[in-house]
Amino acid sequence: MTPNQEPLHIITDKKNLRLLFKGEEIFAHSPEQPFVYAGRGTGNYRMFRGNFHISERLKELVGLQDWDLLESEPNRLVIRFSQGCSIYHGRKSHYNLILQAAVVSDRLELSCTTETETGQAPQYKPNRWRFHFSAQTNEQVYGCGEQFSYLNLRGRAFPLWTSEQGVGRNKKSYVTWLADVAEGAGGDYYWTFFPQTSFVSSRHLWCYADCPAYSVFDFSAPDHHELYFWDLPSRFVFGLKPSMVETIQDQSAYFGRQGMLPDWVMEGVILGVQGGTETCEHKLAVARKAHVPVVGIWAQDWEGIRITSFGQRLRWNWVWDQERYPGLDRAIKTWNRDGVRFLGYINPYVLQDHSLFQEAEPQGYLAKNGEGRTYLVDFGEFYAGIVDLTNPEAFRWFKGVIKHNLLDFGLSGWMVDFGEYLPTDTVLYSGRSAELAHNEWPALWARCNYEAVQEWYQDHPEKQGQIVYFMRAGGPGSQKWCPLMWAGDQNVDWSEDDGLPSIIPAALSLAMSGHGLHHSDIGGYTTLFGMKRTKELFMRWAELASLTPVMRGHEGNRPRDNWQFDSDQETLAHLARMGHLHRALLPYLRTLVVENAERGIPVMRPLFLHYEEDSEAWHIKDQYLLGPDLLVAPVLEPARNERKLHLPPGIWCHLWSGETFHSPGPAGMSCTVRAYLGEPPVFYRAGTAWEALFREALTTCEALYPSRPVSKTDAITVQDISK
Amino acid sequence: MTPNQEPLHIITDKKNLRLLFKGEEIFAHSPEQPFVYAGRGTGNYRMFRGNFHISERLKELVGLQDWDLLESEPNRLVIRFSQGCSIYHGRKSHYNLILQAAVVSDRLELSCTTETETGQAPQYKPNRWRFHFSAQTNEQVYGCGEQFSYLNLRGRAFPLWTSEQGVGRNKKSYVTWLADVAEGAGGDYYWTFFPQTSFVSSRHLWCYADCPAYSVFDFSAPDHHELYFWDLPSRFVFGLKPSMVETIQDQSAYFGRQGMLPDWVMEGVILGVQGGTETCEHKLAVARKAHVPVVGIWAQDWEGIRITSFGQRLRWNWVWDQERYPGLDRAIKTWNRDGVRFLGYINPYVLQDHSLFQEAEPQGYLAKNGEGRTYLVDFGEFYAGIVDLTNPEAFRWFKGVIKHNLLDFGLSGWMVDFGEYLPTDTVLYSGRSAELAHNEWPALWARCNYEAVQEWYQDHPEKQGQIVYFMRAGGPGSQKWCPLMWAGDQNVDWSEDDGLPSIIPAALSLAMSGHGLHHSDIGGYTTLFGMKRTKELFMRWAELASLTPVMRGHEGNRPRDNWQFDSDQETLAHLARMGHLHRALLPYLRTLVVENAERGIPVMRPLFLHYEEDSEAWHIKDQYLLGPDLLVAPVLEPARNERKLHLPPGIWCHLWSGETFHSPGPAGMSCTVRAYLGEPPVFYRAGTAWEALFREALTTCEALYPSRPVSKTDAITVQDISK
Repeated sequence: MTPNQEPLHIITDKKNLRLLFKGEEIFAHSPEQPFVYAGRGTGNYRMFRGNFHISERLKELVGLQDWDLLESEPNRLVIRFSQGCSIYHGRKSHYNLILQAAVVSDRLELSCTTETETGQAPQYKPNRWRFHFSAQTNEQVYGCGEQFSYLNLRGRAFPLWTSEQGVGRNKKSYVTWLADVAEGAGGDYYWTFFPQTSFVSSRHLWCYADCPAYSVFDFSAPDHHELYFWDLPSRFVFGLKPSMVETIQDQSAYFGRQGMLPDWVMEGVILGVQGGTETCEHKLAVARKAHVPVVGIWAQDWEGIRITSFGQRLRWNWVWDQERYPGLDRAIKTWNRDGVRFLGYINPYVLQDHSLFQEAEPQGYLAKNGEGRTYLVDFGEFYAGIVDLTNPEAFRWFKGVIKHNLLDFGLSGWMVDFGEYLPTDTVLYSGRSAELAHNEWPALWARCNYEAVQEWYQDHPEKQGQIVYFMRAGGPGSQKWCPLMWAGDQNVDWSEDDGLPSIIPAALSLAMSGHGLHHSDIGGYTTLFGMKRTKELFMRWAELASLTPVMRGHEGNRPRDNWQFDSDQETLAHLARMGHLHRALLPYLRTLVVENAERGIPVMRPLFLHYEEDSEAWHIKDQYLLGPDLLVAPVLEPARNERKLHLPPGIWCHLWSGETFHSPGPAGMSCTVRAYLGEPPVFYRAGTAWEALFREALTTCEALYPSRPVSKTDAITVQDISK
Repeated sequence: MTPNQEPLHIITDKKNLRLLFKGEEIFAHSPEQPFVYAGRGTGNYRMFRGNFHISERLKELVGLQDWDLLESEPNRLVIRFSQGCSIYHGRKSHYNLILQAAVVSDRLELSCTTETETGQAPQYKPNRWRFHFSAQTNEQVYGCGEQFSYLNLRGRAFPLWTSEQGVGRNKKSYVTWLADVAEGAGGDYYWTFFPQTSFVSSRHLWCYADCPAYSVFDFSAPDHHELYFWDLPSRFVFGLKPSMVETIQDQSAYFGRQGMLPDWVMEGVILGVQGGTETCEHKLAVARKAHVPVVGIWAQDWEGIRITSFGQRLRWNWVWDQERYPGLDRAIKTWNRDGVRFLGYINPYVLQDHSLFQEAEPQGYLAKNGEGRTYLVDFGEFYAGIVDLTNPEAFRWFKGVIKHNLLDFGLSGWMVDFGEYLPTDTVLYSGRSAELAHNEWPALWARCNYEAVQEWYQDHPEKQGQIVYFMRAGGPGSQKWCPLMWAGDQNVDWSEDDGLPSIIPAALSLAMSGHGLHHSDIGGYTTLFGMKRTKELFMRWAELASLTPVMRGHEGNRPRDNWQFDSDQETLAHLARMGHLHRALLPYLRTLVVENAERGIPVMRPLFLHYEEDSEAWHIKDQYLLGPDLLVAPVLEPARNERKLHLPPGIWCHLWSGETFHSPGPAGMSCTVRAYLGEPPVFYRAGTAWEALFREALTTCEALYPSRPVSKTDAITVQDISK
């Protein structure tokens, strides 16, 4: 951009139009290669237990070839795009787009509306829109919410629809095939709980399309990005900054930032246990005896359970189960005094024939089906009603449930499960089409929790900032209403698309989507089709978790098939070692969490965020930066005692050996380091102000429990051992 | 149709247009629901060893709303369809269709052209066309070439592209998954060697679109059929007759009819054997000793073999292998004198570094790649050149190979393999785009064989009508150039989509596509992923084959994994029984073959062809009529000693028991009959002139070998037994 140019700038001739923002081409339009296409189609959503199979009968899709500049002022333009024709049966072109381009808060906003002709046949109302934004051949693209299979999105199309993430998520995996055959649950590379119509590009550009409808972001064309929507986006927002860091800061400011995490969350390990007060007490004692720095007990079954063929499920009636958890109210107080928080679970459904359902249904708080009756959703051998969050009374009522049943009861946090199932044929109080509300639901559900907590803080100022909840489902808005994401339901395996390795692209793509706080179930969750969590997998996952903001366990859906933290003394000791690493990093992590809250720089960062000149860095999805000063390359494969990794330019010090690597600029270098159990490859940047802290962390760990090579028996599961 | 109406008739008002043929609506056009859509897109063809994965980037697809009647005469109309707009940048609508509708030979022909504007941008040349032809809600649809999974096509979309048929062909089958993972070879319900852009409907209508490009016939909409093409069809042809029989006769007359089969083919069994002259001699002796009425030896390896990881493959150099088949020339003469023909194998490729390749390449007879070099196709551990059948010299040369190396040598027939692999990036002598030539290739390859045989007959009039060849690949034109189809490479299993049961829809859908002579490899072919042919499968397959025009065996790609006709004495005796059933039916079968050749009524017929009033008949794909007088309901599942089936209205006599069933009209009835091994459920129509023949067949069979119940050991494979 030359200094005397306005940020918004167009270049036109008789037929063609190019729109530039700060000198970067946003789109180029010509009659032959139109910027926008309008059309009509019919969508078909097949849903079974959160697994969506979406297809389309496209009727037509027409390039809007013609354009007129309706208004033109500095930093504000109004352009009409229309079909390349003028008069038909006395009417104007029946597809058109009025695009208002304006610079607002140093961002480019493209607002979209259409002109409707009087008497226009309803058949002509377009419900399909495709926009071609400019792309460069070597441009790299990130974001689209939480993406588990790919970090760099270039070269592929990403349908954006919140749903189950799939089991296996790769048609070449046997587990995926089994899950597909069983109930169409295998998924694919783009299935996600947290889709988002936004991306960040290596051009230092971020783009957000405000459209909750089903959409597909296709980054596979060489010269443009095709963004396809089943409804007209109300607007596009673009930010353009001098660096990647500033770009994502600007995006984060737009979406809204996460708050701080309470210190206690980062001070150690949250045990994921269940089974009753005594069991919690017992497991806590076992963990503490092994020096695990326990900061919380997360018991998802605090409200009781039901057994189904899938495994142990929960009783979705958000009331303390006094039979399963006798004396929990008193136990929580005791634990709290002892520095251990208690965390529970909630989701936005209420179980049929239970007290909350019976309270909500007569008030009209539950969403309806097309016949005007309460919509009962099949969750696999039980049914539940959907709390209609578009009904202000229902929303208020459910906030009350959270405040009274969870917070007043003494929970310090909870898993905020689900949000991604809203059936497209639900009839909502607000009149909002469920096809649009579907993708909005996770953020609305986050907001319900957010407001409940904020309102409760007002009555309990002494607890300000001490509550934490975490979600898997998300979308635009989740950034400000959800303080912490978790990666959902990984398989208890090493698979690239759905096992331990998928955690890193998930965290980093969310980081590129404005959400900077991420963690996962240590050891994974989904235990089906013969999968069983091994000791080695548990230990490697704990290593990774220790280098994320939060360490929290989960027994999985079939706990007895899985290796658990207390399955043997060595695992306990390993968890203690990793927990103390995490705890020792608290001052550093706290700084990063502050940076995320105040400046919108995520805690876990892709390498290219700080090393743009390193061309390799743009393609790495199995390493990350934990803040600016730690480089993490976790072991993601079984039976490895070393790991090959990439070091961006600079001088890097291997935490465990103290060995120093001089990585030349600008391309960086690859190296291989020893990676015994207990030694996740971590490097600190030479010259960091945190060097003393990092060295102290090392000393603490080594004092607790030594690292050792992987042995064959580490891959043996509980059940195998029990034979 | 009222008598004073012309066959071609339009009903119009200012905006709408309906075209009727003999009173049946062919299409209804309105600006809101246009008849035709034009657009542009880019196809992506990924091919690996005949497995095509085709996808599309659709740029736009525009309904042509406007229409003008340019010419109107009795039985001839010219209509221009164009975009709903008049002038853009000084040009007319850039998408248009000139449709000439005319009645020719009692058929409706819709010829398609476009008006090209002078100076029209090449970007506007449409390469996507979608036509919406009228459909009735309860209309049933058949044809589209050879369809293995579905006979009734209504409710689904069928991409039409000749390719491998797939291994498993059902994403829920484990074998399909394994084949997909191995090399994307699993296939899907619509994969076929013989696709055809035609269908027959229960409205007594047949429709053919003359378009070799990739296309999709979608019969899933309630009120129209969507026919989608990657090129403009030159024309559509419609026939409409008072009955289904007359409808398919008319279609057959249009495509051209098959000739007669030689009598010898129907007189007994063609053994599928390999391994050399002595092996053939030995197996012939074994079969004859067991009273198998052998009429031919089909040895696909007459030209030699190569071993690959897939199994035993053939040496694609079409010259007698004197090492593997010493004295074959003399042996053929001896066998012939003894009433046994010898059949071989050919395909349209020539093996790299072998004599025919070396002869063809310097002459320019082999197709080229984009760099002007000989296109070498990867067939799995070997490469071969493509004989360029669009080069008249190459075509002539290859006919010479057939005449000299096959016919003069003494072959009485051969398998004409392949035809479906032509890569879309092949550069052909004729300049024809390989994207269009691809679907044309099978018929061209059939024609090469047809002409070779006809020319050879001129020099050998005494052999007139004695040669037979059979193909798996096909398309429009195959009807007149290929005398006999075989079903390709079924799995050696019972699977609905790719095993024994798939033979019937394959035969019947071809019957609805103008090809009335079909048979299959007895026992199936594909022996991979742990599949092994069982004794029971072989026996049931032989039963089905005995009630088709031709009985021919195949050892499969891994012969030693499969049960063979000579694996035990009982199997030999069973084959003898079924062979004699087939042989005994010769006079009846000959009449059917004549009916097919002269009147275009297929030998194997869907039930609805003769029982239109029976609503059930339109949905049956596991039974067929063998001519008008035999109803066949083969056993298609393992471990069954009876079979449930549907009897259309009439009096039916069960062949084996003599029991008579009175099936009431119009709906027919279901019944269950005993179906021991050796007793495929067959019924003859009471009152048939062939009753004595059918009874004699029964007596012959019973004299040879008794039927018996299925036992558990029948399901055990060769390898299991050998343990």
